[in-house]
Amino acid sequence: MPLGANSYGKSGVRLVRIARREGRHDVQDLTVAVRFEGDFAAAHVAGDNADVLPTDTMKNTVYALAKDRGAEEIEEFALALSNHFLGNNPPASRVDVAIEESLWNRLGWTAFEGSSNERRTARVSRSRSGVAVESGLKDLLILKSTHSGFSGFKRDAYTTLKETTDRILATSLTAAWSHASPAGPFAGSWGAVRRTLLDAFAAHESLSVQHTLYAMGEAALDGHPGLSEIRLTMPNKHHLLVDLSPFGRKNEHEVFVATEEPYGLIEATVTRNAQRSDS
Amino acid sequence: MPLGANSYGKSGVRLVRIARREGRHDVQDLTVAVRFEGDFAAAHVAGDNADVLPTDTMKNTVYALAKDRGAEEIEEFALALSNHFLGNNPPASRVDVAIEESLWNRLGWTAFEGSSNERRTARVSRSRSGVAVESGLKDLLILKSTHSGFSGFKRDAYTTLKETTDRILATSLTAAWSHASPAGPFAGSWGAVRRTLLDAFAAHESLSVQHTLYAMGEAALDGHPGLSEIRLTMPNKHHLLVDLSPFGRKNEHEVFVATEEPYGLIEATVTRNAQRSDS
Amino acid sequence: MPLGANSYGKSGVRLVRIARREGRHDVQDLTVAVRFEGDFAAAHVAGDNADVLPTDTMKNTVYALAKDRGAEEIEEFALALSNHFLGNNPPASRVDVAIEESLWNRLGWTAFEGSSNERRTARVSRSRSGVAVESGLKDLLILKSTHSGFSGFKRDAYTTLKETTDRILATSLTAAWSHASPAGPFAGSWGAVRRTLLDAFAAHESLSVQHTLYAMGEAALDGHPGLSEIRLTMPNKHHLLVDLSPFGRKNEHEVFVATEEPYGLIEATVTRNAQRSDS
Amino acid sequence: MPLGANSYGKSGVRLVRIARREGRHDVQDLTVAVRFEGDFAAAHVAGDNADVLPTDTMKNTVYALAKDRGAEEIEEFALALSNHFLGNNPPASRVDVAIEESLWNRLGWTAFEGSSNERRTARVSRSRSGVAVESGLKDLLILKSTHSGFSGFKRDAYTTLKETTDRILATSLTAAWSHASPAGPFAGSWGAVRRTLLDAFAAHESLSVQHTLYAMGEAALDGHPGLSEIRLTMPNKHHLLVDLSPFGRKNEHEVFVATEEPYGLIEATVTRNAQRSDS
Repeated sequence: MPLGANSYGKSGVRLVRIARREGRHDVQDLTVAVRFEGDFAAAHVAGDNADVLPTDTMKNTVYALAKDRGAEEIEEFALALSNHFLGNNPPASRVDVAIEESLWNRLGWTAFEGSSNERRTARVSRSRSGVAVESGLKDLLILKSTHSGFSGFKRDAYTTLKETTDRILATSLTAAWSHASPAGPFAGSWGAVRRTLLDAFAAHESLSVQHTLYAMGEAALDGHPGLSEIRLTMPNKHHLLVDLSPFGRKNEHEVFVATEEPYGLIEATVTRNAQRSDS
Repeated sequence: MPLGANSYGKSGVRLVRIARREGRHDVQDLTVAVRFEGDFAAAHVAGDNADVLPTDTMKNTVYALAKDRGAEEIEEFALALSNHFLGNNPPASRVDVAIEESLWNRLGWTAFEGSSNERRTARVSRSRSGVAVESGLKDLLILKSTHSGFSGFKRDAYTTLKETTDRILATSLTAAWSHASPAGPFAGSWGAVRRTLLDAFAAHESLSVQHTLYAMGEAALDGHPGLSEIRLTMPNKHHLLVDLSPFGRKNEHEVFVATEEPYGLIEATVTRNAQRSDS
Repeated sequence: MPLGANSYGKSGVRLVRIARREGRHDVQDLTVAVRFEGDFAAAHVAGDNADVLPTDTMKNTVYALAKDRGAEEIEEFALALSNHFLGNNPPASRVDVAIEESLWNRLGWTAFEGSSNERRTARVSRSRSGVAVESGLKDLLILKSTHSGFSGFKRDAYTTLKETTDRILATSLTAAWSHASPAGPFAGSWGAVRRTLLDAFAAHESLSVQHTLYAMGEAALDGHPGLSEIRLTMPNKHHLLVDLSPFGRKNEHEVFVATEEPYGLIEATVTRNAQRSDS
Repeated sequence: MPLGANSYGKSGVRLVRIARREGRHDVQDLTVAVRFEGDFAAAHVAGDNADVLPTDTMKNTVYALAKDRGAEEIEEFALALSNHFLGNNPPASRVDVAIEESLWNRLGWTAFEGSSNERRTARVSRSRSGVAVESGLKDLLILKSTHSGFSGFKRDAYTTLKETTDRILATSLTAAWSHASPAGPFAGSWGAVRRTLLDAFAAHESLSVQHTLYAMGEAALDGHPGLSEIRLTMPNKHHLLVDLSPFGRKNEHEVFVATEEPYGLIEATVTRNAQRSDS
């Protein structure tokens, strides 16, 4: 049988790097994934491993290059890793390197506390013909306690939802934006785009999750000319107004039950150029 | 800014359906996700919800149709749901319905115990021009205690891995196979493909994860003419031989430490026709 | 400041042991935790580690003894480990060893598939004056689709729950039973007690979770004279009847929504002797 | 068979409370658990529910009282809930209320982002003879990049660990402290104790996890006279120095692999009075 699309690599390479400068340390906490695509049919069909760089070697390489390079933006580290792997493995046609950074806040010169669940992300996809760099964040919890509604929607025989002009809008934001140039600069860029997204979220008069998602994407592209497009994923973490009327109380948008399931799931890409549709 | 690819829907719709037959019950435990693609630019750009069927309505519809249809294969339920939604929502160009089934074993006429973590899955993707049906499984833990090796691989300056002709091969299998026809029949099909995959795994003289993955995919297509292709994802859940020599003992492939991170990640599609490459 | 109760140890020691017998293998998949109590005040107050056996050494010992002893019931392995540690560490006044076993089903002579989420458990608590052995299971999903009701309960101003004589009763069972003698025998015992618990669950005409919990505990003590008491934990995994009346359908106990939060939590110990021990 | 210790209640009551003040909102995100102990033998043995307040009613009561009381310290809310339940349910001999608060940071007048994984906790245990109030935190990630060692420990035949005077010390801190008086005041107290714990962690010259744990507990009691004791749980999240020598590099305490399993687990209580209470 013909072999179709295939890939292999190492995921979950957990790396903590301490940059030591005269008593003041910086900590970088990364999880790296490396993924090769290419001509590996012999390995699959015949069990011939001659072209297969072990994933254990990929892991070793991540640690060795982490030592050599020292602290840097995760986009730069991903660029370096993908360059190393693609250059040294002719059977690979594409190497993707994805890095997630867990953030730490400073407690002292050499002590830290974990920041939120949010992860800073970078993904470099390098082929023989070019390289694409994506930055992003994932699992950032955000919530608007008002300035959010949902009304005027389509109704059918199964619709029981009430219209509302005042609800909680909460999501666990995942976003990834593409850089027009793989050359960066990346320093400062991530924090600036993140700030734009959060400001747009906080300021928006939301008519739906889609409406706010688009406003955030548009603000990111408007404010950061180096971005070519941005993809946002916003699960709607529903907060339901508790019905207190059986107990003789009126709930004036004060007490909500937070639910996990089911959840709305809203995804969209906003692009700078009409031609691009990501399909 | 132009809106690119976008979708919305409801995920995590948790449904338990009891089929009651004269004292003997059957239980079906499903998690349903519905997803619309289409022309929803007005909702994003202008906050105009006139074309937006609420995801709450999607949830209600799942429950109402579950009542109407009664027990059936999850592929059939997904076909029915996607047909309902695409037919009643002109702005939608595509409706995907994904169902995960948690399996229960019988303890008595009306009592059950949970089966494994494994989920049976189905995904129907229906557009104005056609419909595709995929069946699968996810998170099925399987392990070979021998008949597995890894040697003859590429080495470079960062390679420290030793060759082995006898190791544990363990994975959490996820697989999805496409049906050549959306008409089925689906009854019995899922269990038969699953059995073929497990038999191939158990019998294989494995030279690598890729090698075993391909053998499993090939066996599925060979044994089941109704399948057009199959995609397998096999994280390599490494089991490391514990070095007991510091304690004066020899570990003859008896005592292993199971690790979670890092893990190899192997993915490939096996197709029936050479032309298809899934890219 | 005085140091109060304290303990230290190693948790999450992941061990897979392969018993190899002429082509037929058995696999045992264990997670071991070791915990010392005793006079370790100097370590806490002064940083004096002279009496502190490193937790890394505990881990090494688990692997070395696993090699020496070969396959056995987990209660026996825990007894042996606790005996080793207490005997060799005079400052320790008590050593607890807890083992969780993940179960595998056979696919072939040397191939296996993961069983359910359920874990078989054992806990040995050994002090200078004696030893106690507990066996158990955790996270076993069980469900009754009928023969379960809840009515006649206390009502107050905040009660809106309707009485029912037919509901789904589902839980994720955790149970632990104490052996009157630490000498066992343990072979076959675990499966027999488990079977008694499941049979009682399946057969019970349930008037509440408490009612079924007690019936299960009573059946275990009645059927197994070697047990001195049993503790059961049964979260009530609520399954709510979906209201289909807005859509013109009647839900005759067929379609339920499974919920995760909030959940009832019911716990009790059933003892053989009135003078209960765990006050 | 005699019924031993037993309890029942509702867990996972998810509550978001918005305090609305002229355009400026505050958000409080709580998960509440209520637990009754008492004379509920008839419910267990005979299925007689006359004394059983449904856990659904407990949930309703949490929401109703949340509305009545408005924003307050979680200790105060737990005190009020336990008072309500014990006062209205004569068969209950003890009511425990545990609250976990997820913290949010302000993005704007009515917008928020999730803080870390850390949870603020409170537990009130109220019986007919008195009430105890505990405050705490859980799952707070903290890390020292130096000023931490482990040496001079006990060695035996299974010890391979090397001594070190410079290692990473990282943990996910859980702590709970008892208030000498249930009257509080609680406002400001939680943040102040938390700050003392973090300052002690950052400043400590650590000779072991036990050593640092004790120093943190001692600092909390020293700095806060209203506390009677504190219990700390500190899993040792091991960070292993990567051996780069096979690749011709020297790792000068820069590159570490973060591991999840196995982990050391260190727990202790520090008390103000020598006659310890928690035996």
